Amino acid sequence: MKAFEIGERKIIDIIWSILEKDNHLLDQVLPHPDDASAIKLNDHYILLKTDMLVRKTDIPKGMRMEKIGSKVIVMNTSDMISKGAKPLAFLYSLGIPRNFSIKKLKSIIIGMSKKAKDYGIKILGGDLGEADDLIISGFLIGISKRIIKRSGANIGDIIATTGRFGNTSASYKILLEGFYAPRNLRRKICKSIYEPNAKINFLSICDYVTSSMDSSDGLAYTLNELSKSSNLCFKIYNIPIAKEAIEFAKLNSLNPEELALYGGEEYEIVFTVKKDKWNEVLEIAKNKKFEIIKIGEVFPGRGVFLVKNSKEIEIPYKGWEHFK
Amino acid sequence: MKAFEIGERKIIDIIWSILEKDNHLLDQVLPHPDDASAIKLNDHYILLKTDMLVRKTDIPKGMRMEKIGSKVIVMNTSDMISKGAKPLAFLYSLGIPRNFSIKKLKSIIIGMSKKAKDYGIKILGGDLGEADDLIISGFLIGISKRIIKRSGANIGDIIATTGRFGNTSASYKILLEGFYAPRNLRRKICKSIYEPNAKINFLSICDYVTSSMDSSDGLAYTLNELSKSSNLCFKIYNIPIAKEAIEFAKLNSLNPEELALYGGEEYEIVFTVKKDKWNEVLEIAKNKKFEIIKIGEVFPGRGVFLVKNSKEIEIPYKGWEHFK
Repeated sequence: MKAFEIGERKIIDIIWSILEKDNHLLDQVLPHPDDASAIKLNDHYILLKTDMLVRKTDIPKGMRMEKIGSKVIVMNTSDMISKGAKPLAFLYSLGIPRNFSIKKLKSIIIGMSKKAKDYGIKILGGDLGEADDLIISGFLIGISKRIIKRSGANIGDIIATTGRFGNTSASYKILLEGFYAPRNLRRKICKSIYEPNAKINFLSICDYVTSSMDSSDGLAYTLNELSKSSNLCFKIYNIPIAKEAIEFAKLNSLNPEELALYGGEEYEIVFTVKKDKWNEVLEIAKNKKFEIIKIGEVFPGRGVFLVKNSKEIEIPYKGWEHFK
Repeated sequence: MKAFEIGERKIIDIIWSILEKDNHLLDQVLPHPDDASAIKLNDHYILLKTDMLVRKTDIPKGMRMEKIGSKVIVMNTSDMISKGAKPLAFLYSLGIPRNFSIKKLKSIIIGMSKKAKDYGIKILGGDLGEADDLIISGFLIGISKRIIKRSGANIGDIIATTGRFGNTSASYKILLEGFYAPRNLRRKICKSIYEPNAKINFLSICDYVTSSMDSSDGLAYTLNELSKSSNLCFKIYNIPIAKEAIEFAKLNSLNPEELALYGGEEYEIVFTVKKDKWNEVLEIAKNKKFEIIKIGEVFPGRGVFLVKNSKEIEIPYKGWEHFK
């Protein structure tokens, strides 16, 4: 049997079943699946995250080298902050081909270095090796007094996001499927994949958050994962769609909600907050000048539903998967 | 300019000069170059290490999948323990081709899982992605009250190793250059590269160690790096050569000392100990049933010298380098 025949999620299940036999999963502070791993040390949690970038599969054509470097920081940081942990230190494992240009390599490191500095992360070291293709693995360590899990939502909680969705799907439609967008719109849309950013400001509200997850597998997948983890029903009243994605959808007769739900590589945080704390959270976000958007509410039951014209339509549990 | 035109060490220098500009290297507890990185947290040090394995360049032909998995643990553990830190938790970043066999993947994970368990390390999680070639990046976190640096040796210290050298060089001569060894000898020699092991018992003596380094870049390189880091002269009276390497050298008219000095991928620890503590250290090693070998002594001055028939021959600063 080959990897592509069973897909990423089944492969991960196989890996975890092996690790389980050797008791690696016993007493884990932040058990699989969650956005990061953790160990407890005295009265702190040490959070650990690794995320790998492979040129062929994870880097869109036309992305600048500097932005590739910064993306490795973004990917790892987004998962780390979604657990409420302040990222501290970063290590890289860098694989490059023998004939890789040193100029390109410099740009990658400059991008990595700058973005880490922006987020208050120190790059402490790494490993360099020879590979057939450009591969960058990032390892991030962070610290927190409390961990926000994927589970933890309560009935009545507000469901919210740190931003709007749909531009990454639109970018892939433009770049891979030849869909049309006028130059200016195209530039704005593609910024979502060429210049990704982690919502580091989320840390300022995370004391109020009951559950959360990074949305890089897509909004629909993220909502379903959160709902399943808390064993509760998520009702969505308002899909947070980027205005550029709406304009692009209109131009191409596409459904903007589909673009927003089934994207991926959007480094937004999807989270829940106790209803009576929402205004307080909104106030903090306003003061810190970042957007948070109320999109729904948690109910008893199962599944994720879009409530529209008093009908409830199920939002299916699907998202991006490697090898498929 | 291309990577192979300047080689691994110069590339690393370029990377570090960029990181330096953004202050990533400021106030580092364990500054570059050393075997691992570290941050201080209350009264503990958190040690961090990443090491990457690429099938094409780092895995000898004929190595079993299970041993490839265990090698990733060994590589990272060896560096971690050489700094005196107890390894705690491990994350992997695994890149595999689309058509990679699931059976092989399982074997890799089984090897990784078992070896981690042997060393008391918990595998907490990881990342899985698509790559052209098998690539495994390991990320290890450990903890210690005190860090053993590469610098730290004093005049009069004993220089020692946790084992004997030469078998990995001999293996590569057999596998890559077609040198001869009878079947039984060949099997024993090649075990050094097919079934590497980290000297985890080193942790039991590390309170007495003044400086140390993992020897995976070769014995000559490691001794020179230690001597340079402490700004002292290392005089070697006894090169610790594996008896199989001696036999192999005799059969092929090779110099066994050369095999021992310029190998690599030997996961031994090279370390220094205060002279008056040597017998105590020897006693601990005897009780814990592992070998440590006295090979020389630290003197004022610079460089590494082999003392032989009252002559001093300089041991040059060379070792394995990627891209060259």
